[in-house]
Amino acid sequence: MEAMDKTFRMALLFDAYGDLLTEKQRRFFTLYYHDDLSLGEIAETHGISRQGVYDIVKRSEKALQQFEDHLQLVRREEHMRQVVGKMSVAIDQLRSLTCELSPELCEEATKVLDTLARGLAEIGK
Amino acid sequence: MEAMDKTFRMALLFDAYGDLLTEKQRRFFTLYYHDDLSLGEIAETHGISRQGVYDIVKRSEKALQQFEDHLQLVRREEHMRQVVGKMSVAIDQLRSLTCELSPELCEEATKVLDTLARGLAEIGK
Repeated sequence: MEAMDKTFRMALLFDAYGDLLTEKQRRFFTLYYHDDLSLGEIAETHGISRQGVYDIVKRSEKALQQFEDHLQLVRREEHMRQVVGKMSVAIDQLRSLTCELSPELCEEATKVLDTLARGLAEIGK
Repeated sequence: MEAMDKTFRMALLFDAYGDLLTEKQRRFFTLYYHDDLSLGEIAETHGISRQGVYDIVKRSEKALQQFEDHLQLVRREEHMRQVVGKMSVAIDQLRSLTCELSPELCEEATKVLDTLARGLAEIGK
């Protein structure tokens, strides 16, 4: 995995499961991945060995991946985003279809389509 | 909380987070909540004390509730079900609306509505 890919993936996993890490894991993980500090820099400012920091970051990565293996939140959210995208296109198609081809339907259909669009926004949140 | 309510809630939590429990927690939790054995019965067949079984079941309950406190999967799924229900009604309204009031739109609109209904089924899974 490329470094950027891994950082992006870790950000997704942290976003989904970060609350399940210990406070210490969260802090070191954030310094390393979010604030982009090196292991050496974190070690220095926290008075522990570089290896100690490395172990905590690795343990956090492993824990996050294990949560994903069991719960699949990141995979499910990605799938959900795709489905919501397709449905959003379908709603726009129906808007054009009804209002262009059947003006007498436009107002009533638009109300129902607005309900659908609001539902989709709720789901996409 | 009534006993039935609690059992139902525990079933939802177990369904969402059971994979995160230890194997032992999962086994005892299932015997107690799913198979409806008493603490005494489980203790007897597993050769440990009633208090021991009680502690494992309580620890499992607490762990499941903590996962929910952090991840809110059960609450989010319940909310999702409500949204999907409302959207499903809206899709049916649009089916009637277009096909009754505008027969020339019916076929095309039905195709798009089918896409929406399939998306909703994906989301509801």
